[in-house]
Amino acid sequence: MSDSPTTDALRSASPLRHARTWISKETLELENGSQLSDVNVCFETWGNLDKDASNAVLIPHALSGDSHVTRHEEDDEPGWWELLVGPGKPIDTDRYFVICSNVLGGCRGTTGPNFENPETGTAYGAEFPVVTVRDMVEVQKRLVDELGIKQLRAVVGGSLGGLQALTWAIEHPERVGACIVLAAAPRLSSQGIAFDVVGRNAIRHDPCFAGGQYYGGPSPEAGLALARMLAHITYLSDESMRTKFDPTRLQPRSVEGGFENIFSVGSYLAHQGGRFVERFDANSYITLSTAMDLFDLGEPGAKLEASLSPATCRWLFLSFSSDWLYPPEASRQLVDALVARSQPVSSCNIESSVGHDSFLLEEPMRLGGRMVASMLANESDTSGPIRVPEEPRIEDATSIFYAQRLDYEMILRLMPRGASIIDLGCGNGELLSILRDRDHHPLRGIERDSHAVADCVDRGLDVIHADLEEGLPAIPDQSFEVALLSQTLQSIIDVVGVLDEVVRIGRRGIVSFPNFAYLPMREMFLRDGRLPKAEGLYAYDWHDTPNRRFPSILDFQELCAQRGIRILEAIFVDSMSSQEIHDDPNRNADIAVMVLAR
Amino acid sequence: MSDSPTTDALRSASPLRHARTWISKETLELENGSQLSDVNVCFETWGNLDKDASNAVLIPHALSGDSHVTRHEEDDEPGWWELLVGPGKPIDTDRYFVICSNVLGGCRGTTGPNFENPETGTAYGAEFPVVTVRDMVEVQKRLVDELGIKQLRAVVGGSLGGLQALTWAIEHPERVGACIVLAAAPRLSSQGIAFDVVGRNAIRHDPCFAGGQYYGGPSPEAGLALARMLAHITYLSDESMRTKFDPTRLQPRSVEGGFENIFSVGSYLAHQGGRFVERFDANSYITLSTAMDLFDLGEPGAKLEASLSPATCRWLFLSFSSDWLYPPEASRQLVDALVARSQPVSSCNIESSVGHDSFLLEEPMRLGGRMVASMLANESDTSGPIRVPEEPRIEDATSIFYAQRLDYEMILRLMPRGASIIDLGCGNGELLSILRDRDHHPLRGIERDSHAVADCVDRGLDVIHADLEEGLPAIPDQSFEVALLSQTLQSIIDVVGVLDEVVRIGRRGIVSFPNFAYLPMREMFLRDGRLPKAEGLYAYDWHDTPNRRFPSILDFQELCAQRGIRILEAIFVDSMSSQEIHDDPNRNADIAVMVLAR
Repeated sequence: MSDSPTTDALRSASPLRHARTWISKETLELENGSQLSDVNVCFETWGNLDKDASNAVLIPHALSGDSHVTRHEEDDEPGWWELLVGPGKPIDTDRYFVICSNVLGGCRGTTGPNFENPETGTAYGAEFPVVTVRDMVEVQKRLVDELGIKQLRAVVGGSLGGLQALTWAIEHPERVGACIVLAAAPRLSSQGIAFDVVGRNAIRHDPCFAGGQYYGGPSPEAGLALARMLAHITYLSDESMRTKFDPTRLQPRSVEGGFENIFSVGSYLAHQGGRFVERFDANSYITLSTAMDLFDLGEPGAKLEASLSPATCRWLFLSFSSDWLYPPEASRQLVDALVARSQPVSSCNIESSVGHDSFLLEEPMRLGGRMVASMLANESDTSGPIRVPEEPRIEDATSIFYAQRLDYEMILRLMPRGASIIDLGCGNGELLSILRDRDHHPLRGIERDSHAVADCVDRGLDVIHADLEEGLPAIPDQSFEVALLSQTLQSIIDVVGVLDEVVRIGRRGIVSFPNFAYLPMREMFLRDGRLPKAEGLYAYDWHDTPNRRFPSILDFQELCAQRGIRILEAIFVDSMSSQEIHDDPNRNADIAVMVLAR
Repeated sequence: MSDSPTTDALRSASPLRHARTWISKETLELENGSQLSDVNVCFETWGNLDKDASNAVLIPHALSGDSHVTRHEEDDEPGWWELLVGPGKPIDTDRYFVICSNVLGGCRGTTGPNFENPETGTAYGAEFPVVTVRDMVEVQKRLVDELGIKQLRAVVGGSLGGLQALTWAIEHPERVGACIVLAAAPRLSSQGIAFDVVGRNAIRHDPCFAGGQYYGGPSPEAGLALARMLAHITYLSDESMRTKFDPTRLQPRSVEGGFENIFSVGSYLAHQGGRFVERFDANSYITLSTAMDLFDLGEPGAKLEASLSPATCRWLFLSFSSDWLYPPEASRQLVDALVARSQPVSSCNIESSVGHDSFLLEEPMRLGGRMVASMLANESDTSGPIRVPEEPRIEDATSIFYAQRLDYEMILRLMPRGASIIDLGCGNGELLSILRDRDHHPLRGIERDSHAVADCVDRGLDVIHADLEEGLPAIPDQSFEVALLSQTLQSIIDVVGVLDEVVRIGRRGIVSFPNFAYLPMREMFLRDGRLPKAEGLYAYDWHDTPNRRFPSILDFQELCAQRGIRILEAIFVDSMSSQEIHDDPNRNADIAVMVLAR
C-alpha cells in the first residue's frame, strides 16, 4: 500500500487529497474473460477500525462519484454524501470505520480506460475491457482483505452503489452483516437503458472520440456533455424540473460549447454537462454506464430469487416515490424476492418529489438517514437497538384503534408459544416488539405508513412498506405460523382478498375487530335512527370515520363459512366491563379475536 | 393552385403522390418579425365539400407527420392516421371534406429550411426563421380561405397537431365549430423541453451539420438519428418498452451507422433513427421541435384562461393515462381553464399502456375514435346526435343504484324550470338527457368512468372525466343554478369536501341518497345483529358494498347544520309503497332528496 498517487494515470481530474492507492498484485480475471494485472485501487477511509475489525462500513459510489464521500477535516473539500457520513451523522465516523474506493473502470485513481495498457504502452481507451458490477466488487473485496477486515458491518450504496451493495451480499455473503440499498433495482428498465444508449452513442459520434483513443488530443467533450445532460434529466423528476425551470422558461443563462441557448432548462443542462466534462472521462462514462445497464439479477420471480439466494445478511431497501430511473416498483421486486425466501428484510418507499437523486438530498434522507442509522446500530450484536421511537404517528397508520389496544391481551392468549408471526398492518411495531420479548421468531411486519415503518426499523424489526389492499403475492403459502390482522379488518376495502391472504400466508390467522352489532349499538341505532357513535372504538362520525367496513361477529362468521375458512378459536370481550363474553357474543361483545385456518 | 410539385424544394423526401401545392402570394409576417414570401403549401384532401361548405374537417399533423393522413385509393401508400380517417371511419371521408397540409417549416413540400432563400439564392438552412405554431396556423388559414371554406366543422389534431388545433380555436374562433385536441397541453413540461434541447444539440454538434448549411453535402444523419432516438423514447411508455424489449434485452438486431449494438432496445432505436433520417430534414426537425417547445398558453389559472378566452367552439380533449410527454394532468389544465370560463367542453383520459403515441394506435383509439365521431356528428345543427349509447356499463360508474332511479321524479319536481345544472357523478348522462329535453341549459356532467363519459359524448352532452373526491376547483362559485348529486353521496369518502363543493358551485344543491335509518333496516339490524341487507338499494354484502358511507336523514341534516348548509326543501319517499313520506321520514322513508344552499 502506498500514499503516492497512481503513476499510471494518463489522464485524471484533480487529485483527491486524502486518497491512497493500493495496487493489487494478483491478476484480476474479469467476468467477460479478460484479465487486468496490477490493478490500482484508489480509496479513502474515515474513523478507526476497532480491535476486532467489526465496525467497518463500505460505501460503494454511484456512476459519477468517487472515493471522497465526506470531509476528513473541516477545511477539506465537501464529499458527495456529507449528508449521511461524518461524525454524529447516520453513518457515524465516530463509531464506524468507513471505506470508499473509486470503482474499477472509473477515472479518479482506480484502474480504468485512462490507464496505460501494459500490452500496448498506451492508454486503454476503448480497448479497456467490459467491466461488470461483479468485477468492481471483486476489486473492493481485495481492498477489504488488505485492510484486514473479515466482516463488514454493512455495505451501503445508492444507484450504481446500490447494485454493488447487492452484489456484495450475493458474492460474499459471509462478509456482509447488513446490506442497505438505496434507489436501485434488480436491473435497469428498458427505458433507462435506452437513455444510456443514446448518451453513449452521442459520445461515440463525437468526432473527437476517435474510436476511444483521444488521450493526448482533444477529448469528446460535446458528446460527453450530451450524455450527461440526458442522464441528468433522468436523475431529476418532472416535478422538480417544473419547480426549478417553469417560472423562468425563456431566461437561459449564458451557455458555452455551442449548445442551444433558448430555454432556461437547456442552459442549466449545458452548464451541468460542461462541469461534468471537466472532471470525468468519456471512456469511463461508457464503461460504468454499460456496467449499470448490463447488471441483471433476472426477471422478478424464480430467476431473481435464485440470484439472491446466496445472500444471508439483513437488508434495508429505500426507494423514493418520484424516482423514475430506479422506481419504487423495481426496488420492491428485490424486497419481494427476499421475502419469498424468508430473508430478514425491511423496506421503505420514501415520499419525495426530487427523483432519483433523492438519496443524495436532505429532505428525503431525513427519514432515510434515520433508518440507515438504526440498521447500523441494530447490526451490532452487543448494543442492541439504540433508538427510542419518536411519538407514534397514528394519522395514517393502518391500525385505527391505536390508542386503545384491548385486543393485545386476547391475541397474546391465543398465540402459540414461540410461533413465527407476520403482522399485517403492524403500525409502529408495538405488538411485534411485545411478541419479540416473548421469544416469537421470526417476525415480520407489513405497514403502509412510512413513518410507522421507520419506527419499526428503529425497533430493529423487519418491516415491509406495503398496502395490504394490493395483496402480498411475494409471501409464500403457510410461511408463518400466524398471520395477524389486528384491528385492521374494518379499514380494508377488499375484505375477501385480505382474509384469503391471511389464511394463505399463515398456518393460522388471528383477526381482531370491533363488533358493530354489539347490542348497545343496535339499540342506539333503533332508538336514535342515526349511525351509532360511542366512546373508544366507535368515536367517529359517519362521514369521516376511517372505517370502510362494519363487520358484525355473525357477518364475519358467515363470510368465513362462505370462503371455506375455519374458525378454530375465538375470544369475545365486552370492553365496557372488560369481561370475556361466552353468551351470544354478537349481542354482548364489542371486540372479537378469532383464530382462523383454511 | 397547381398540381405540380414545388419547384423550390432543394431537398425533399419521396414526393407525396396525391399532394397538391398552392402558393400563397401574400407576404407572411411571422410572429418573430421575419417575413416569408411565396409560401408553398403542400396539402391533400379527401371526400367532397358540400354545397354550403359546412362539412370540412382540418387535421393538422404532428412533428414527424405530413399531409398524407390516409389513403386516397386502395393501392395508395398508407397514411399516418388510417385508423381514424377514411370511408366509414370516425372521421368519415364519405361525410366530411378532410384537409391536411404539411406544416410551415416542414420538409414534405411546404416552405421550410430546405427551400431556397430568395435573398441568397441558396437554401435557408439554419437561416430559416423561427416559426411558431401560430405561424403554422396562419398558413393553414390561407389555404382554407383559398378552398372557399368559411367555417370548419372541426379541427382535429394530436401532439403538435393538437397545439395547432388549440391555436385555430383561439386565433380564428369564428371559423371553428369543434376543436378536438388529443395528447396535448398548454405547454410542454420543462422535462419535455429538456429532451428536445438535448436532441437539437446532438444535431448541432454533428460535424456534418455545418451550421445548418449542409444541403448539397452530407447531412447530419448521426445527430438527427440521435435526436429521433431520444424523442422516440418519450413517445413510448416505460411499460410498453418493458413489454417490447425485456424478454430479449441482450439480443440486438444488426445496427448501422456506428451505433451501439449491445441491447435490443438500443438497436431498435438506432433502426428508428436510421429510418427517420431517410425521410426527414434536420433543419426542419430543429424548426418544428423548437416551435413545439415555444408554444405556451401560460401557466394554469388566470393566464391560461386569458389565452383561451377568444375561443367559442365546442371542445373535446382526449388524454392517455401513460402519456408522460403531454400527460393527462396537463390536458386537464386546458379543460379546467375552459370550465372556469363556462365553455362547452368534454374530456376523457383514456386508459392506455402505450404512452404518447396512443393517439395513433388502435387499442386506445377505440374509445377515442368513438368520441371523435360523436363530436363531429353532434356538431351538425341539423342531424343531431346520431348514436344510441351502447348498453350502460354500471360496474365502475359513480351512481351505484343505476338500474333503479326512483329519485329522478323527485329531482325533476324540485328542479327550477330551465335551470342550469351540473350533475356530479352523471353516469351515462341519462338524467342530463332528460333535463336537456326539458330545456335546461347549460348542462355539464362530471363522471369518473371513461366509458360512461363516452356515452355522454355520444349523447352530445358536455362531460368532464374527473373524480369528485379530488375536488372541482376549476368550477367557479355559484356558476350553476343547480349542482346535482344523485345517489352518489354514499360512495364518497370525503363527504364534507364534496358537500362543500355542491353548495359552492351551485346556487342550490340537490342531493339524493338512500336513508340507512329506514325503520325496516333498523329493525332488521336489531333483530338479526347483522348489517342490514334488502332488495334494491341495499342489496350488498357488508364486505363488498360499493357504499363507503351510510347516511341517515338525521345524520345528514345534522352535518348540514354543522357546515352552515341550509336545507330549503326536501322530498322523502318510501320506495316499498312508492308513497311520499311526511311523517318522521328518518323512520319511514328510504330515499331522501334535499335542496341545499349555503
